[in-house]
Amino acid sequence: MRLLEETIRSIGEPNKEAMVEAKKIWDSRTHPIGSLGQLEDITIKLAGITGDTKNSINKKGIVVMSADNGIFEENVSSSPQIFTYLLTNAMANGETGVAALAKEQDSEVFVVDIGVIPHGEYIEGVIDKNISHGTKNFAKEPAMSREDAIKAIEVGIELADELFEKGYDILGTGELGIANTTTSSAVLAVLTGAQVKDCVGLGGGIDANQLLNKKRVIEEAIANLNPNKEDPIDILAKVGGLDICGIVGVFLSGAKNKKPVVIDGLISSVAALAANRMNPLCSNYMFASHLSKEIAAKFVLDELGLKPLVTLDMRLGEGSGCPFTFMILNSALFAMENMGTFDSTQIENKKLVNIRDNKIEVDL
Amino acid sequence: MRLLEETIRSIGEPNKEAMVEAKKIWDSRTHPIGSLGQLEDITIKLAGITGDTKNSINKKGIVVMSADNGIFEENVSSSPQIFTYLLTNAMANGETGVAALAKEQDSEVFVVDIGVIPHGEYIEGVIDKNISHGTKNFAKEPAMSREDAIKAIEVGIELADELFEKGYDILGTGELGIANTTTSSAVLAVLTGAQVKDCVGLGGGIDANQLLNKKRVIEEAIANLNPNKEDPIDILAKVGGLDICGIVGVFLSGAKNKKPVVIDGLISSVAALAANRMNPLCSNYMFASHLSKEIAAKFVLDELGLKPLVTLDMRLGEGSGCPFTFMILNSALFAMENMGTFDSTQIENKKLVNIRDNKIEVDL
Repeated sequence: MRLLEETIRSIGEPNKEAMVEAKKIWDSRTHPIGSLGQLEDITIKLAGITGDTKNSINKKGIVVMSADNGIFEENVSSSPQIFTYLLTNAMANGETGVAALAKEQDSEVFVVDIGVIPHGEYIEGVIDKNISHGTKNFAKEPAMSREDAIKAIEVGIELADELFEKGYDILGTGELGIANTTTSSAVLAVLTGAQVKDCVGLGGGIDANQLLNKKRVIEEAIANLNPNKEDPIDILAKVGGLDICGIVGVFLSGAKNKKPVVIDGLISSVAALAANRMNPLCSNYMFASHLSKEIAAKFVLDELGLKPLVTLDMRLGEGSGCPFTFMILNSALFAMENMGTFDSTQIENKKLVNIRDNKIEVDL
Repeated sequence: MRLLEETIRSIGEPNKEAMVEAKKIWDSRTHPIGSLGQLEDITIKLAGITGDTKNSINKKGIVVMSADNGIFEENVSSSPQIFTYLLTNAMANGETGVAALAKEQDSEVFVVDIGVIPHGEYIEGVIDKNISHGTKNFAKEPAMSREDAIKAIEVGIELADELFEKGYDILGTGELGIANTTTSSAVLAVLTGAQVKDCVGLGGGIDANQLLNKKRVIEEAIANLNPNKEDPIDILAKVGGLDICGIVGVFLSGAKNKKPVVIDGLISSVAALAANRMNPLCSNYMFASHLSKEIAAKFVLDELGLKPLVTLDMRLGEGSGCPFTFMILNSALFAMENMGTFDSTQIENKKLVNIRDNKIEVDL
C-alpha cells in the first residue's frame, strides 16, 4: 500500500518548458506549421515527459500481464479458460501476435503471470508474480480482496520501476486473460457511469446471445456489488481483474518515473483510465496506439483525452498495438531532428532570403 | 500515347489463388481469426499483387512529382509560387519532411521536375523530365494540351517501369507544387460529379476568404472548360496539373508490373482515382497510407474502396504518408511469417490437442 500511495503522490506535471522548446524546433522545420500533425504532437508530449527535447526510444519493452478471471464461469467468453495458460506459454515462446510484432521492432516482451490458473509447467521466460490462481466469479462475490488488488497494482509498479531503472525508454502494456474484456467493460462502466451496453463488445468473438448475457452479467454484478465510483481500487477489486490491476501499476510507474507508457486495446486503456482516476496527471505520460475494434475503445481514449495513431481494425489485445506507436514515435523523432530548417532551405516566414549564389527577392 | 494505351490495356486481375493461400496462412496463426485486422488485409492484398504469399519490401522508393500550376495566379494558395522550386531543391537535398521520414525507413526519394518554373540552378539529384515551365491558368484556358497530359502520364509510367525493373518492391507517390490542392480538387469534382464545396480544403493554409475564392475559381473553370467526365485525360488536361499526371503514370505502372504503389494525401489520391477510372483494376495494386486533414481525403479513398492505415492528422503532402505504409506492411509481413501456429501452440480450432508431454483434454 505504501508503494502505491507514494507512487500516486510522487507524480508531477510534465515539463512545459521542454514542450515549448520542442514546438519551437518543429516550427523551424521546413513545412507549413503543424502540418505533420500527430508526429509533432507526440514528440512535443515526449519532451514534456522526459523534460528534454532530445529523445530516443531505443530500449523498448512490452509488459504483458496474464491472469484468469472467475467471471469466465458465466459463459461470457468464446474461448476455453485454459487458453490463458496456453497463450502465456506461447507468449514466452515468442509465438503470439505481439511477440512477432515486437520482435520486428526490436522490442522485448515481458510476460508476467500475475494470476493464471496453472495447467502444467511454464515455458521458461514467464515472470512469476502470481497472486492467486485466477479471481473469483464476480457474479457471486467480489473478484478479489482490496488487498489483492493493491498487491497486483504494486506488482506492476515494481516491475516497471525495475525496467525503467534498467534503461528502458518506453514501455507498452498488454494482457492475456480469457474473459478480460468482461472485467474491463465492468470497470469502465463503473468508472465512467456509462451504460453497460456502451461498454461491452464482442471480445475474442462471442455471438449475439452471449453478448446479451455478457451485458446482463455485468449489469447484475454492478447492482449487487455496488462498487464505489469514486474509488478505483474498490472497482478493480470488485469487478476487475489481476491483469488490469498490474497494468494500472505500469502506467503509474511511467508517470512517476517520467517515462512514456503505451496503451494497447480495451483492457489496457481501461487500466490507463483507472490509473488516471488515481492521479489525473497520469495521462500526460501515456500514448495511445491503435483504435481497437472493441465498441468502447474510442470512448475510453476520449475520456483520457488521447488519440490513436493508427486504425488497423485490430481486436487481438496482447499489447499488439504498442509496436506501432514505437515505430511512429521513432519516425517522428527522426524527422524532428533531421528535417531542414526554413533557414537552410532559404525559405523563411514565407520570405525568400536568397538562392545559393543568386540573390532572389520576392515581394510577398 | 502508345505507352499509355498499352499500359492501361495490360493491367490484369490480382492473383486470387495467392490471396486464398495468404488467408490460409493467417488462419493457421495463433489468434482469433481476423483479429489482426488490416495487418491481415494488406498482406493478403500484397499476395494478390505479386502472385506469391512470400513477400518482402526491402527496396522502397518514393517518387515525388514536382510542378507549377498556372492557377496560382488566382490567389488560391498561401505560399509564393517560387516555393515549388525551392522545395524541389530542398527535397533533392534531403531536407523535407518526406525526405527525413523516408530516410528513417531506409527508403529512397526520387524527385522529378515534371513542370517546375525554374528560378535558378537545381541542386544535383533532381530528375529532369520538365514538360513545360508550369501549366496555364485554367481560369482562363485549359491547363495544358491533351498531348502534354499524356506525355506527363507517360513520364510517370516510364520512370516507375525503370524503378521496378531495377528491383524496387514498392513505390510511394508524392508531389510538390504550389496550388496543387486546387488542381486536385477540380479534377476530383469532375471525376466524381461531387459538389466543388465537398472537394476543396485549406491546402497549405489559406484563410476563409481564400477558401471561398478557391471554390469559386474551380466552379467557374469547370463551367467554362466543361471537361468530359468520362474522359480522365480531358479532365487532367483542362483542370489538372503535370504532377498529378505524372503520379497517375506511377499508379498505372504499378498495376501493369504487378507491384504495389502507395497513396499519400489528396493530390496523390486524386491521381490514384484518375488512374482507376482509366482501368478499374488499378486499385487492386494500391495501398492507402494516412487520412489527410484535407476535407476530401476520406471521400477519395472511399471512392477507391481503400482504407487508410494511420490517422496522424497530417496535411503536408510530399509523399509523407508513404513511409508509414512501408513500416506497417513490413510488420504485417513479419507477423504473418513468424507467428506461431495453432499446432505449435497446442491450440487448434478451440480444441486443445496436448500440452508438451502431458495430454490434456478439454471438453468444448
